[in-house]
Amino acid sequence: MAASKVNVGLLGMGNIGTGAYKTLEMNRRLIEENTGLDISIPKILEKDTGRKRDVTVLPEQFTQRPDDILKDPDISIVIELLGGIEPATGFMLAAMENGKHVVTANKAALAANYDRLVGAAKANGVMLRFEASVGGGIPILNALTTALLANEFVEIQGILNGTTNYILTQMAEGGLSYGDALKAAQGKGFAEADPTEDVEGHDVANKLSILISLIFGRRIPPQDIPTEGITGISMDDIARAAAEDSKIKLIAVAHRDGAGIEYSVKPAFVKNSHPLAGVNNEFNAIFVKGNAVGELMFYGRGAGPLPTGSAVMGDVIEIAKATTGE
Amino acid sequence: MAASKVNVGLLGMGNIGTGAYKTLEMNRRLIEENTGLDISIPKILEKDTGRKRDVTVLPEQFTQRPDDILKDPDISIVIELLGGIEPATGFMLAAMENGKHVVTANKAALAANYDRLVGAAKANGVMLRFEASVGGGIPILNALTTALLANEFVEIQGILNGTTNYILTQMAEGGLSYGDALKAAQGKGFAEADPTEDVEGHDVANKLSILISLIFGRRIPPQDIPTEGITGISMDDIARAAAEDSKIKLIAVAHRDGAGIEYSVKPAFVKNSHPLAGVNNEFNAIFVKGNAVGELMFYGRGAGPLPTGSAVMGDVIEIAKATTGE
Repeated sequence: MAASKVNVGLLGMGNIGTGAYKTLEMNRRLIEENTGLDISIPKILEKDTGRKRDVTVLPEQFTQRPDDILKDPDISIVIELLGGIEPATGFMLAAMENGKHVVTANKAALAANYDRLVGAAKANGVMLRFEASVGGGIPILNALTTALLANEFVEIQGILNGTTNYILTQMAEGGLSYGDALKAAQGKGFAEADPTEDVEGHDVANKLSILISLIFGRRIPPQDIPTEGITGISMDDIARAAAEDSKIKLIAVAHRDGAGIEYSVKPAFVKNSHPLAGVNNEFNAIFVKGNAVGELMFYGRGAGPLPTGSAVMGDVIEIAKATTGE
Repeated sequence: MAASKVNVGLLGMGNIGTGAYKTLEMNRRLIEENTGLDISIPKILEKDTGRKRDVTVLPEQFTQRPDDILKDPDISIVIELLGGIEPATGFMLAAMENGKHVVTANKAALAANYDRLVGAAKANGVMLRFEASVGGGIPILNALTTALLANEFVEIQGILNGTTNYILTQMAEGGLSYGDALKAAQGKGFAEADPTEDVEGHDVANKLSILISLIFGRRIPPQDIPTEGITGISMDDIARAAAEDSKIKLIAVAHRDGAGIEYSVKPAFVKNSHPLAGVNNEFNAIFVKGNAVGELMFYGRGAGPLPTGSAVMGDVIEIAKATTGE
């Protein structure tokens, strides 16, 4: 049986875009064997065509004109990995209006424009998937929206940012001050030159906003989530936690409270006996309670080109399976 | 929009069958809201109709004749929760030959007759799902066969049996001998009166056989998996592990080794720094490595009526969504 050909357009080939491309390059034959899908990425919107990327990409695959992808009738799925709210949101809306399915890792655009984006998918009869936007390679959104659908969710708690978890781990285990731990994270590529989005908790608030939409069906914009980062954590706080047989973690939490829900992003003491306490360095984890399944935890790499590429290409495969009948 | 009506037949209403029924009873309205599916279980094959079950089930729902379910044209999905290889396998084959989708938690029947059952699903154009057969409520099979499909799997390691993990935890943390820990497990309902299947590792070998089929596409019957249980573990072994900063866990492992794969079920030292070391008592966990996603771990309740019910009803919902277009 001939494989079903699926053409994908890629918006943005920075670190994450390169990771998604490389994931497909590494595993394309295996994916075809397992699923009957022959997936390729013929067109890429990217200005920086000269950068060394360690993947095979031809100059003619690059374009500077968004419409070369958004209006190409041969492209059925668009991957948006530009980051930032605009022009990413506009490109995703245009892709869906042109009948294309969309996969994105863009938590900022989703948290800012969730209703518009989900509404556009519905209105245009296309799929919008965003596994990579929360927890990197951890397939948490897929689990919450498929295998766990027989549950009423009671609570979700997450360590959703690798930068801050690395810093807190280095403070607790390496005895580094906040400033030195931040420098170490920057040295390892886990923190950006301007770490504000991460260390002030905004990145986590975006992710929690997306999780709340999915499991509680409520739309809470990230700016309405009480958010505290880790910049105020001192070595005294770390020592106080240790004395209470606990660790300090930056915890995103949302739980039912009567008819409503309560939510926040803030540093919290986590008892060493709790599964989240053992989640160290750049790892992420999501702890969920459902009224049937009880307690579950999902653990893995919350960032990085290949883990994020795994989630992005997983979404592409799911869309392709659903739409080609493979 | 009217909900899509889905009639499900249930084979077996012991502990797990009751848990699946109760999961639906608790969350039926929520499932309908979230998915547009109106799922009910009008018919149940079960001899013990008098048992107190803590769910609302009418006498006329029970039948003693398998064909009342297997040949009922109004039933589109059959849940098999009888356990054991036969008559469960025969009933599943008959259901599929009659065009019904099948959901099962039966690892013994799957491990013994995997090819026949999967082949029958293909031949009859129906779906066969078995999330609950490995890891109870943990949605591991769904993740491996959907969200993680862009990976080549390198290794899988699991703590896949709650009985033995409870016993080993009580030996290590409670200082109990093997015999006393087994009695404690039986007292808590975590071990059966005849614990052979669990403590000799056969239950885990069944589960590993299913995992190997899914991630490596290879069929290894459970009797071909080198299997060692925990009956020979002494307090000296436990102390030796502790001295090496490790815990003894009953580990199912399969990993690529050149063109082949290696696999076994046996007690192993797990370093305390490894995520599996923190999986205690009746909890299960599965640790997976993919060539893109890196290391992942899934943690949760590997047994029990409601966690298993969550997995069973999750499969029912997935089949119903795929077949009704909801």
